[in-house]
Amino acid sequence: MLRQAVYHRPRNNYAYFDREDCAYLMLRAGRGDLSSLELISFDKYDPESTLRREIMPLYLSDSLFDYYRITLCPPFRRVAYYFVLTDTEGEVLYYDELGFHAENKHCERDAFQLPYLNHADAVSVPAWAKSAVFYQIFPDSFAKSPSHKPAVPVPQWGSEPHITKHLGGNLRGIIEKFSYFLELGITALYFCPIFMSNSCHRYNTRDYRRIDPTLGTLEDFKELLSLCHKHGIRLILDAVFNHTCDTFPAFQDVIEKGEASPYRDWYYIRSYPVIVDQEYRYERFSFERHMPKLNTSHPETRRYLLDVAAFWTGLGIDGWRLDVANEVDLDFWRDFRKTVKSINPDAFILGEMWNDSQPYLNGDMVDSVMNYPFVTACEYYFLNREISTREFQDLITARLVCYPQPAVFAMYNLLGSHDTPRWYTLAGKDLQKVILSAVFQFCFVGMPAIYYGDEAAMEGEDFVKARRCMNFTPQGDGEALRSLYKELIAMRKSHRVFSEGDFRWVELTPQSGDAPLCFQRSLEEEHAALILNNTDQAVCLDPKELAARFPWCEALEKAARLEPRSYRILL
Amino acid sequence: MLRQAVYHRPRNNYAYFDREDCAYLMLRAGRGDLSSLELISFDKYDPESTLRREIMPLYLSDSLFDYYRITLCPPFRRVAYYFVLTDTEGEVLYYDELGFHAENKHCERDAFQLPYLNHADAVSVPAWAKSAVFYQIFPDSFAKSPSHKPAVPVPQWGSEPHITKHLGGNLRGIIEKFSYFLELGITALYFCPIFMSNSCHRYNTRDYRRIDPTLGTLEDFKELLSLCHKHGIRLILDAVFNHTCDTFPAFQDVIEKGEASPYRDWYYIRSYPVIVDQEYRYERFSFERHMPKLNTSHPETRRYLLDVAAFWTGLGIDGWRLDVANEVDLDFWRDFRKTVKSINPDAFILGEMWNDSQPYLNGDMVDSVMNYPFVTACEYYFLNREISTREFQDLITARLVCYPQPAVFAMYNLLGSHDTPRWYTLAGKDLQKVILSAVFQFCFVGMPAIYYGDEAAMEGEDFVKARRCMNFTPQGDGEALRSLYKELIAMRKSHRVFSEGDFRWVELTPQSGDAPLCFQRSLEEEHAALILNNTDQAVCLDPKELAARFPWCEALEKAARLEPRSYRILL
Repeated sequence: MLRQAVYHRPRNNYAYFDREDCAYLMLRAGRGDLSSLELISFDKYDPESTLRREIMPLYLSDSLFDYYRITLCPPFRRVAYYFVLTDTEGEVLYYDELGFHAENKHCERDAFQLPYLNHADAVSVPAWAKSAVFYQIFPDSFAKSPSHKPAVPVPQWGSEPHITKHLGGNLRGIIEKFSYFLELGITALYFCPIFMSNSCHRYNTRDYRRIDPTLGTLEDFKELLSLCHKHGIRLILDAVFNHTCDTFPAFQDVIEKGEASPYRDWYYIRSYPVIVDQEYRYERFSFERHMPKLNTSHPETRRYLLDVAAFWTGLGIDGWRLDVANEVDLDFWRDFRKTVKSINPDAFILGEMWNDSQPYLNGDMVDSVMNYPFVTACEYYFLNREISTREFQDLITARLVCYPQPAVFAMYNLLGSHDTPRWYTLAGKDLQKVILSAVFQFCFVGMPAIYYGDEAAMEGEDFVKARRCMNFTPQGDGEALRSLYKELIAMRKSHRVFSEGDFRWVELTPQSGDAPLCFQRSLEEEHAALILNNTDQAVCLDPKELAARFPWCEALEKAARLEPRSYRILL
Repeated sequence: MLRQAVYHRPRNNYAYFDREDCAYLMLRAGRGDLSSLELISFDKYDPESTLRREIMPLYLSDSLFDYYRITLCPPFRRVAYYFVLTDTEGEVLYYDELGFHAENKHCERDAFQLPYLNHADAVSVPAWAKSAVFYQIFPDSFAKSPSHKPAVPVPQWGSEPHITKHLGGNLRGIIEKFSYFLELGITALYFCPIFMSNSCHRYNTRDYRRIDPTLGTLEDFKELLSLCHKHGIRLILDAVFNHTCDTFPAFQDVIEKGEASPYRDWYYIRSYPVIVDQEYRYERFSFERHMPKLNTSHPETRRYLLDVAAFWTGLGIDGWRLDVANEVDLDFWRDFRKTVKSINPDAFILGEMWNDSQPYLNGDMVDSVMNYPFVTACEYYFLNREISTREFQDLITARLVCYPQPAVFAMYNLLGSHDTPRWYTLAGKDLQKVILSAVFQFCFVGMPAIYYGDEAAMEGEDFVKARRCMNFTPQGDGEALRSLYKELIAMRKSHRVFSEGDFRWVELTPQSGDAPLCFQRSLEEEHAALILNNTDQAVCLDPKELAARFPWCEALEKAARLEPRSYRILL
């Protein structure tokens, strides 16, 4: 047995629990190494009468590993357990917290544990998230109504975007275009910052309690929020709590009064006097001298920011996207969550994290994160075509096993954002690449998220150019793509299996061509499958194999042949 | 390369940081698999000018794995990194968050990260802990002064203990025996509960703000605490916050008023009326009907308990041992830590956890835990002699790599407690077994902790009988053992290398006999080593090998031959 491959450690993606007092356990072993895996579980205070022995089914595999999982709902909210591994050569090993044992002498004593399933420690994500389809708006660029007069001079609508200068989009513009969301069919909106700021991106906040006057008024915002809720659309806002603008009053006070400022501990000042120049006298977001980093551990700063969160949550918004979330201290996000959820338990908290985010997804901080590793995998496979189907499956399998399942089903699966070049541009304007990646995104586990205009094949070779004014009347590729997105959204909404169904890879042996990417989603009796050919050769599949693999599907004829770079969705 | 063996994931024992803005990284690989490991690190916002390439040295090995580690102190408090692994056959692989790559195409983009070293998220343990020698007292059984009249009838001092009935030990008795601690040389005391309760163990609290009257008065306690501090001895108390006594006023109110009680949410009531019987109408510690489990998530309950913690911390105690810590919700311990550390930043927080405790040791909950897996390893090796030296080394290596280093150096390394049979009894009264395990304990990394009377070879075949009245005048084995403990304590206090020195295993090739257990501790120019023969055969070592391995030691002659079951400490 390949002992080195075996991994299990409680309280993360390998062992967690929910508020229904159910525990979710996963064990990793070497790929193809085990012939069976059993779980022995018991109540540590009464092992004899509570002992259970169960087979742990295989969930997923990647090139190196098999992942097994099981669910347990212990009656007294605690569980101790160990594993019995049998390999393909018949070797049996007991695996407990102290390691591997040929005999079960002490496994009960040395068992793994979830010592108590306190609800406060449970993983819990708002139920609405998993079936959401998100649409992200960069408010300066989405729509501009002439009825609102901008507070700053703005160029003609449609001008080229600039990193800080405004284009002049406003909330009334969004209200006027509201029917677009309904036509598209999206169910949730994420707005980039809308609070007062001197830049078009508004990630350098000047006043956290005021709608930026170039965008509109608080009344405009309330009207827009009502409109959303009237149509069953959720709206989340951007919380930029890692840093402020350098013109933020607290920072200005520190510049003015130096060490005597009552706000000196709101930031991380390294030396006085504080001067806004390249010398690193205070900590920053990146090296941006105009974005001084907030000390979110300072009680007054924290209170101020949490009051801001409470204010907007109290207005009825449906959650927050947390800017630069992984550079803010963990304890701040815990308090943030408590504040927000105490006002609206259904509020959704989405972290901007580009990396593995396991520490944040244990139920006490964020509900979900922006799934940039998903973007990366799609970019390497669908756009760059630099990795094999097998390598892509490995990257995608990692996205499925790396977090607790409620978070996986609520991942914000994007392809582009205001921080990336446009997906269509990255694809070299190759429509088929965009189509295949979008289809994959909508068939996959987690919330599909569309960056405004990506559905219209808008272009932009860097993150600034990705902020052009919205194109509501796309032609050619844009028109085709928008139709596809509408279909995919409609499909996802009418087939719960895409939002809630289990996932498993399906290996198909083609009669000609390379093995396609294929997976099935299943929710009780409902099934769906995607077969996707990302190669330049046609793939011919064996009708008998298809019939055996997908007995629930009545329309398999068309699936037997996949043209180069094409797909079939089986329903 | 054995890819399945490679493991790294940030924010746990594999990657953490301290308040000095230094990051500590560890990578695990298959034993003997790598010929070199390099770390490439950089600031993600300025990779070009910050890129560093460093060798990661091998730290420890067990049967399956090698553990490599390195320390980085990035100037801007953030670090991104990936690894370059070269195996013994010359294969080079790049390892980043997305896996293994033959070429470095995207490692910078897909790097691991510690996104920001916020002090609030740092691992930090009071500096005094690592050099402490703890002594645990069960206050009902340690010493009884006739000057204090017990509040309950007690039998003659020295009677057999009972699980709940008192023997009558008291605080004045401890005060009168205080010189014993000074003779022994211990530097810290941990008292089992001293708050009002109707049992001798006092783990079912009746009043958290009152010294149990059978033990003494608040004045007695203050006098004892002063005496401790006068002599440089720290004192920590037992926080029993998982559950109360069933006669606790809040629980009595729930029994009396049922659902109408304002205290109904202090507990987890499953059905009304609440009756103290075997039917499981409320959640409990274990299945103990007299120990109803507190709902530590309920704000009022939490406030009450934190006020208790603040009250005693404010009196000047040096920390807390947390009873059944792993069954209380995590967020309670985070608040507890903030409360306690805001009053006394040097307070030490010790969790009672019998299992892997990684989730609690990231700097936001406890500083240390009772190292029961250490006890287990010592029991299997020194007492039961059922595992090989190699297997013991594996279990001990796990104790060294499983937590952030500040926690490892402050582990509460015990052999017995009020919850276990006596060590001497478990050893079958085999003095040599006790000697070898105690020597190992005192030479090892972490705080040695003595359960009162273990140093006097007291006996007790179960945890109740392990609570006999203290024997201050041991004979025979007890006398011998007490002398040894005094020597070991003195040695540890006079050689900082035992408290602070690095650890590494030393493999010796004997001329006859089995390879002994051997490790070295090193602190700059100071070194120490233990050579321990746990077998029944003498071991003859090669003087030349000894001289080569321990060039800093001038007295190696005696070390060349180890009698059966003997040891040498090299200084």
